[in-house]
Amino acid sequence: MPENRTGAVAPGRPRVDRPVLLGIIGDSAAGKTTLATGIARILGDQQVLIICSDDYHSYSRAERAERRITALHPDSNQIEILEQHLQLLRRNQPILKPIYNHKLGTLEPAQYLAPRPYIIVEGLLGYHTRAMRDCFDVKVFMEPDEALRIKWKLWRDCNLRGYTSEEAQDELKRREEDRLRFIQPQRTFSDIVINFYPPKNDDSETGAHLDVHHLLRPTLPHPDLSPLIEAGARNGLSLELCRDRDGKPVDVLGISGGISEEAAEGLENLFWEMLPEAPHMRNNHVGEFTDVDGESRISHPLVLTELLVAYHMVKAAHGIHAV
Amino acid sequence: MPENRTGAVAPGRPRVDRPVLLGIIGDSAAGKTTLATGIARILGDQQVLIICSDDYHSYSRAERAERRITALHPDSNQIEILEQHLQLLRRNQPILKPIYNHKLGTLEPAQYLAPRPYIIVEGLLGYHTRAMRDCFDVKVFMEPDEALRIKWKLWRDCNLRGYTSEEAQDELKRREEDRLRFIQPQRTFSDIVINFYPPKNDDSETGAHLDVHHLLRPTLPHPDLSPLIEAGARNGLSLELCRDRDGKPVDVLGISGGISEEAAEGLENLFWEMLPEAPHMRNNHVGEFTDVDGESRISHPLVLTELLVAYHMVKAAHGIHAV
Repeated sequence: MPENRTGAVAPGRPRVDRPVLLGIIGDSAAGKTTLATGIARILGDQQVLIICSDDYHSYSRAERAERRITALHPDSNQIEILEQHLQLLRRNQPILKPIYNHKLGTLEPAQYLAPRPYIIVEGLLGYHTRAMRDCFDVKVFMEPDEALRIKWKLWRDCNLRGYTSEEAQDELKRREEDRLRFIQPQRTFSDIVINFYPPKNDDSETGAHLDVHHLLRPTLPHPDLSPLIEAGARNGLSLELCRDRDGKPVDVLGISGGISEEAAEGLENLFWEMLPEAPHMRNNHVGEFTDVDGESRISHPLVLTELLVAYHMVKAAHGIHAV
Repeated sequence: MPENRTGAVAPGRPRVDRPVLLGIIGDSAAGKTTLATGIARILGDQQVLIICSDDYHSYSRAERAERRITALHPDSNQIEILEQHLQLLRRNQPILKPIYNHKLGTLEPAQYLAPRPYIIVEGLLGYHTRAMRDCFDVKVFMEPDEALRIKWKLWRDCNLRGYTSEEAQDELKRREEDRLRFIQPQRTFSDIVINFYPPKNDDSETGAHLDVHHLLRPTLPHPDLSPLIEAGARNGLSLELCRDRDGKPVDVLGISGGISEEAAEGLENLFWEMLPEAPHMRNNHVGEFTDVDGESRISHPLVLTELLVAYHMVKAAHGIHAV
């Protein structure tokens, strides 16, 4: 194996001759776009194409209301076309991607997109069918603490999508059934479940000091995290063998939001060292997010999350996750 | 060969397991839509998907004016996506087809289309690249007499597309260069060139009494037309060996617009007999077109033209034009 002890990608290894696909799937306002943007910054914005699977909605907001169907239901999405487009992109072909205007809730003319070396697909439905799942090299499922997700969603719908507080609350209720029926069941197909949650001592936290758990399934060859764990043990970095809610054993990587600046940077350096292309990739925007006061901030647990997923993408690009 | 002397398709022969594709390419107002609609009526509207390749325009009318580019230029069309969609349809896959609103000159949200047993692609650009041409089973190029085409175009642009007479004239001039550069060169790749023209004794004819020439290239196995020619000789049906304008030998089938009702019906019956599925296919709308006075009429040369092309489609569907 062309890897060293920590699982770093060997530099100079040739790249696979097709795009590498990452899925970031999860419910509305689960942090998918923030994560996708951060990973793209690490891999290089010019190298990455981000596609929102919600662009494949078949109906406008008004048409969904008429038909009494939610945006989460597979029947209100062009599932067959999304499958086809993922297959085309994986074969290095361009697509004519539909566009859903999230602000106005309307369908717009489709847009030509050429593939890029890395493709991130983020949205509600991405692991719904076998044909879709088979297209991804790395599958992430975003599952923040539910009370936290609701705070994020209400903030966004009211501040960025023009809903009143009442409309946004109603929308949450209307979606609940389909969320459990169609979004949640996709969790089981992911390689990594990412769960941001408020620390024990502060229920009201929604931003930079959130803790995060990564549930690591053995469907991906995760890096040997022991040097990181040793370095981070006193700073709230942990790795524990746990049972998932379905009873199956998993590794849970914990990163505390209370980590000190110094310790975080030390850990981040260790992560960067695992990425052979890292010298070109480092920048000051990794881990950036918009807090619910509208301010841009950095979260260290988010930096480490982005680095871990980016690591898997670079590894897949070098053919180490052979299919 | 499972064919009888006249080249009729043997009934009961199994159908190929992919859609059969017909191209009807030519300049604006060359009669493409009329021919496509007529052939679809023969093959059965439920069996046929008609796609307009002009839906793959990249720009709205306003954007083209800004960029000083015509709709005929390959750079103002999604050529790569059109190629991909033709390949997908031929493999029996659905597509998400863009839509160009011809009346308003605007791009609209794309639409899901499932393949059907017969697919007709009509428009300006369809044989521009090798990849496109390779998708068709039968390639028709529409080339009416140029003075006649201009009459048809002016009538349509002013009566159906909201242009003033001056605007329509300007548009013709603006397109002339690209017509010669991009539309005309596609002629050479067609199996059949269809040329409607006014009879010698009436230059002003634009409808039911137009004559038609079919230039039949040896790239398709044309039916043995001798029984038809014998039956039609005294009625203005002719078959002549000619030199095409490029000097290459071709067969030219001539059908006179002055043919009598009785003779036309006799000939049409002979054609119908060559189509094993014909009993299900006969209907009263074959050969229908809208004349420049806005009235719906039947043209016998058009009926025979539609039947000849439909014959090739049925033959291809039974795998007789093996690729």
